[in-house]
Amino acid sequence: MSSERIIYLPLGGAGEIGMNAYVYGYGKPGQERLILVDLGVTFPDMDGTPGVDLILPDIRWLKERRDRLEAIFITHAHEDHVGAIGHFWEQLGAPIYCRAFTANIARHKMAEHGHSDQTVKVVSPWPATTTAGPFTVGFLPISHSIPESSALVIDTPQGRLVHTGDFKLDQTPIVGEAYDPVLWADVAKDGVKALICDSTNIFSPHAGRSEVTVGPEIEKLVAGAKGMVVATTFASNVARVKTLAEAGDRAGRSIVLLGRAMRRMIEAATETGVLKGFPKVMSPEDAASVPRDQVMLLVTGSQGERRAASAQLARGKYQGITMKEGDLFLFSSKTIPGNEKGVIRIMNQFSELGVDVVDDSNGHYHVSGHANRPDLEAMHDVVKPQMVIPMHGEHRHLREHVKMAQSKGRKGVLAVNGMMIDLSGNEPSVVEYIETGRTYIDGSVQIGAMDGVVRDRIRMALNGHVIVTVIIDEQDKPLGDPWCDIMGLPEQGKSHVPLVDVLEEDLGQFLGRTGVKTMRDDDKLEEGLKRVARQSAMSEIGKKPEVTIVVSRLS
Amino acid sequence: MSSERIIYLPLGGAGEIGMNAYVYGYGKPGQERLILVDLGVTFPDMDGTPGVDLILPDIRWLKERRDRLEAIFITHAHEDHVGAIGHFWEQLGAPIYCRAFTANIARHKMAEHGHSDQTVKVVSPWPATTTAGPFTVGFLPISHSIPESSALVIDTPQGRLVHTGDFKLDQTPIVGEAYDPVLWADVAKDGVKALICDSTNIFSPHAGRSEVTVGPEIEKLVAGAKGMVVATTFASNVARVKTLAEAGDRAGRSIVLLGRAMRRMIEAATETGVLKGFPKVMSPEDAASVPRDQVMLLVTGSQGERRAASAQLARGKYQGITMKEGDLFLFSSKTIPGNEKGVIRIMNQFSELGVDVVDDSNGHYHVSGHANRPDLEAMHDVVKPQMVIPMHGEHRHLREHVKMAQSKGRKGVLAVNGMMIDLSGNEPSVVEYIETGRTYIDGSVQIGAMDGVVRDRIRMALNGHVIVTVIIDEQDKPLGDPWCDIMGLPEQGKSHVPLVDVLEEDLGQFLGRTGVKTMRDDDKLEEGLKRVARQSAMSEIGKKPEVTIVVSRLS
Repeated sequence: MSSERIIYLPLGGAGEIGMNAYVYGYGKPGQERLILVDLGVTFPDMDGTPGVDLILPDIRWLKERRDRLEAIFITHAHEDHVGAIGHFWEQLGAPIYCRAFTANIARHKMAEHGHSDQTVKVVSPWPATTTAGPFTVGFLPISHSIPESSALVIDTPQGRLVHTGDFKLDQTPIVGEAYDPVLWADVAKDGVKALICDSTNIFSPHAGRSEVTVGPEIEKLVAGAKGMVVATTFASNVARVKTLAEAGDRAGRSIVLLGRAMRRMIEAATETGVLKGFPKVMSPEDAASVPRDQVMLLVTGSQGERRAASAQLARGKYQGITMKEGDLFLFSSKTIPGNEKGVIRIMNQFSELGVDVVDDSNGHYHVSGHANRPDLEAMHDVVKPQMVIPMHGEHRHLREHVKMAQSKGRKGVLAVNGMMIDLSGNEPSVVEYIETGRTYIDGSVQIGAMDGVVRDRIRMALNGHVIVTVIIDEQDKPLGDPWCDIMGLPEQGKSHVPLVDVLEEDLGQFLGRTGVKTMRDDDKLEEGLKRVARQSAMSEIGKKPEVTIVVSRLS
Repeated sequence: MSSERIIYLPLGGAGEIGMNAYVYGYGKPGQERLILVDLGVTFPDMDGTPGVDLILPDIRWLKERRDRLEAIFITHAHEDHVGAIGHFWEQLGAPIYCRAFTANIARHKMAEHGHSDQTVKVVSPWPATTTAGPFTVGFLPISHSIPESSALVIDTPQGRLVHTGDFKLDQTPIVGEAYDPVLWADVAKDGVKALICDSTNIFSPHAGRSEVTVGPEIEKLVAGAKGMVVATTFASNVARVKTLAEAGDRAGRSIVLLGRAMRRMIEAATETGVLKGFPKVMSPEDAASVPRDQVMLLVTGSQGERRAASAQLARGKYQGITMKEGDLFLFSSKTIPGNEKGVIRIMNQFSELGVDVVDDSNGHYHVSGHANRPDLEAMHDVVKPQMVIPMHGEHRHLREHVKMAQSKGRKGVLAVNGMMIDLSGNEPSVVEYIETGRTYIDGSVQIGAMDGVVRDRIRMALNGHVIVTVIIDEQDKPLGDPWCDIMGLPEQGKSHVPLVDVLEEDLGQFLGRTGVKTMRDDDKLEEGLKRVARQSAMSEIGKKPEVTIVVSRLS
């Protein structure tokens, strides 16, 4: 066996769904030349990351080895695969390769961070390839819920790897390339060492349905509608947007695109020639003069996002358009776990307006973009890899996927973020654990998930905040009484007098009985005041708040 | 027509699922004698109510009319129907009527607030009735996911009302009384003025399944398990707990109940004679010495609650018991919208332990406790009411339920919390809008949802908190520099120096250029300092924090 090895190291996307970032390396241990596949984001929530704007992978390991990074390959233009390139590119500096549609989106992201178009290079699909150090990489077309999604055929001196990216097996995908089993079989015919494979839908037991199946149902629904029709889906699902637009067009309705992302995606798909024959669209202003039963809006916000078009229409008005009694709103989408409350809020707001809401609970108006369990089995059978490394899944998805592979006699390994896998031998083996985490974009700053900033926010949200101000004079005596401010706490508790009065009284008594040694010692004094404030609040309002002590010394 | 009227006024539970509280009144307008049906809670979340312990209805309207309140009737012992009685009883003071099992639970709640057993009166089921002012009220048995759930037959001088409570049409419910269509038809035979009806499952298109259908599937699953088996469901679903225990028992496993609520419910059901033939249970301590393939645990925490037994087992250990590779964990439950992330977190933690997790995604291991659309239609057809008032649902559920009733030629009205409905005439009419809201239990204090306390917590969580301390001397000049503390904010931003240094610099400059007029005016000074702090933070870290200004004057 050669002293060179192939390594696989997920920095994001393995053990979670989101912020995909997969490193491959080839060379002598510790000197491998590297490529990065995808560089995505994931989204914050109030539960765990209040106030955070965006969550990115922790790429410290890669930054420290940027001299060994040959290239970045982006499989497709979903945010969880491409969203972080603008934020991180300066720290990595390698050329970015992707296909034309993806590049259109990627270049806009790079431009937002002041990077030139030249940083993103457009490549043709397989059999075209790009050489990056010891790797030769080809973009192999595969169907997904966005145009030009591609698997990567990664050739190394020790054999071929296939990294699926996100995919489904759709032979009639409406927009973009169909899954071509003959082409895939040809790519695999000389043997594939490892299949690094999407795991999202491993728990969906039935074979996935083609995008083509939703059109007739949507057409029926739109044709039967009496008032205005509004439909939402992921803006990047260009095929669905087209299906929706065509249903509206056939029902004699003018099509209006609402929401920046929706217009951007259709523009990108049209510019790159991916999308053809999209019905003529009308501006929101012009739509105002068209009878509402002759209009169909396609809008952003299928996940209930508060600032998107759907949520704004539900609250009353968006770009001069209002919905009312007798209108129809269609969620041509699935709600991602965690977004249920936001989506349900919108449904109820529409209900209050008298708008009929239709969602996909009957399975007619949406199909998933990911391969279900039988489709994953079919993928394994076409590629016939020596080993399967599940990715793009939570721990439970990866575990189930490994079990499935093993049940068919294939080697597999459960690799989560930070686990470096050696793919060189006859079976995958874990060779190193890298410390990984998450990076937060917070306002204009990048902070680490473990910096404690967000932890403090959560504590203030759960416990409220007391600020205690004490002035100490030149003789180390308190000057006047301690002063309290509260934020996020009840004005009063069991004594039926202001909470701040109770706190100040107790803190004043503490200062009165505190010896000079403590009074001279900032840390001890602060510790004592904090303890008293928390105990006093606990007894008064049944809650121990966060406490900030500000001691000002006149000396 | 008489000058008396019947009114219906939901204070909670109509326009939401949770904190049920429905007022009925009879008498001259403004002088109606009142009864209250149910007094429940709803649960807080980080999204909208961080730090809050429990959410109760706003019962100010009723408190102000407590002299007219004749009685409180509790339909069943679920938290969203009985959870608030202990918190509010002192403010209402009327006798509480319910059936034996419900009373057992209710009395424990009352005892926690120091109220005697006498406040809760046990009544027998229909045809027994209780007189409360102008009302005669009977508890009509109906199946649900907790024993002794009852509809209320409310007779008024102007006719009969039927308030369904929560229900399903189950003729083989395992524990508790079956739905008896003959009895119900008999109750309805002389005409029912209004059916006030559960709406939870109006969007479920297929007839509900009986509790009896889940037993065989669960038995098969448990019989095939190799390691320890742990199952979770709502503790109050006594029938399900029994089914699970019997499946374990038949597979030769010792049954262990984990979690306070689980033991409490089984105890209450046994004490009141509702539950018979429950398999013998073993203590967690004794279970430690039994081989793991001979143990089955029944545990709390089906909704992913962080402190419940399920979550603790997923994190590692609960009462000395750990789960490991080859064990099986069953969610015999449905995830309530909003709880998905917590449940998924547990699933992934179990996956990391090598535990196989089975949930109800195939529909085999759980049935709902609420009537589906065809069951609701059947209920309307049995009761044949003159009017239907949907309750126990979000706006969209109530709206759909009204539409269904109207499509069958019945009068209906969409009444949400605070809408007073006159039921006296031939159709329901809205006669008044009452201001309603929510009351929070926060630590040991009751606060109003609109008090601003929680709003401030959310703001601190989203924006972080800056505390600015300024000392002003006797000449209205700043004594030393302003001092800043931060909480929940990054240590530094674009200048790569501590954020507090940047803030203090900008605030110091502001004080230097501020005239004596502002320096003497606390409000103006505070306003100016706040503005500068927010602008300075915005430019440094791209975020406008919450700011607390503490001005100490030595004069």
